[in-house]
Amino acid sequence: MPQQERARITRERVLEGAARVFARVGFAGASLSDITAEAGTSKGALYFHFTSKEHIARAIVDHEQNLAKESATTVIAAAASPLEAAMGLCGDFARLVASDPIIRAGVRLTSEAGEFDPPLTSPFEDWFIALEQLFSAAVATGQARADLDVPTFVRFAIPAFTGVQLVSGALTDYADFAQRVREMWLFLLPAVVAPERLGDVVAALDRVLPASA
Amino acid sequence: MPQQERARITRERVLEGAARVFARVGFAGASLSDITAEAGTSKGALYFHFTSKEHIARAIVDHEQNLAKESATTVIAAAASPLEAAMGLCGDFARLVASDPIIRAGVRLTSEAGEFDPPLTSPFEDWFIALEQLFSAAVATGQARADLDVPTFVRFAIPAFTGVQLVSGALTDYADFAQRVREMWLFLLPAVVAPERLGDVVAALDRVLPASA
Repeated sequence: MPQQERARITRERVLEGAARVFARVGFAGASLSDITAEAGTSKGALYFHFTSKEHIARAIVDHEQNLAKESATTVIAAAASPLEAAMGLCGDFARLVASDPIIRAGVRLTSEAGEFDPPLTSPFEDWFIALEQLFSAAVATGQARADLDVPTFVRFAIPAFTGVQLVSGALTDYADFAQRVREMWLFLLPAVVAPERLGDVVAALDRVLPASA
Repeated sequence: MPQQERARITRERVLEGAARVFARVGFAGASLSDITAEAGTSKGALYFHFTSKEHIARAIVDHEQNLAKESATTVIAAAASPLEAAMGLCGDFARLVASDPIIRAGVRLTSEAGEFDPPLTSPFEDWFIALEQLFSAAVATGQARADLDVPTFVRFAIPAFTGVQLVSGALTDYADFAQRVREMWLFLLPAVVAPERLGDVVAALDRVLPASA
């Protein structure tokens, strides 16, 4: 195996080991020894790629945020309507969190953002902007109710999504996150969607967040 | 001042000081020195009432849970309908959290319940049972939609409420918690309430959780 390829694999092993440790005990609770033990690498190999625990944490958050942005771009491009895009974003994020330990660690690390200096960028602002744009577009195209108070709705929907994530993580390690997000949308749509469009929007939800079998 | 009265006041000062420290740094991060400094009492006075940091934490959680239960009993007795009771419970809890530092500390401590052995009783189970009973009663009396899936709704509403609490705490130290809970109900009611009863239920919401001026 060429040296460069071996280095890349080691770097990934360190990130994945650290991700499991951060997801379990948080940033403050993780030691470099825990991380090398979990990754099955030496401290030398770790220091070849990273200067500190914080350096590793920032690499995990970068990885998470890049992957989330990439997937958001794909979801929005594929969506047939603004509400399909909004529901798809939430569903896609739920699937990423459930399937990828680095994403899960990134989520926990950004929730502890205050421990970092300079602070980690919080993903809340990005979510807020994206959902506000999509729901404003939905109002403009008649998919959402004309009288929907978009900022107030988004100000509730993001905390609600955060709470669903928290409880799904605590009770099932995110295994039921996508299903809970689907249930969230089913309870929110009657307040949001123009009544004559509700059938279409539920059909869009079935495409982007199908009921689990 | 009689000695008994002085002892009661000291005990309260310790609890209130500890509550501020726990709310700020969590159970693991709090030291007995932080607590006596915050309470303005001596270690001797603290040890007269409590055997350990955990003993103080359990007294705070007991105080919180007793107060919450007392207030829930009052709210349910005063409510004119099951949905008024459900919305009132959430609103009352939001006001308690915003106004009482011991309640705020209890909330944080129960969210860290895993650090205690035997574990603290989580309030989630109580909330789940209370809301499921109230929404089932609302379906039975025709106030809620006949086709409402009550367990699935409660399985969403409790995480949503938790997320609202979390974000309100992080952004405003709970100053806007009651207002955010009101907004939550306004967005949930269309999925829950029989359409011909929606006006009545919003009027009940105005009674138990009025819009802030």
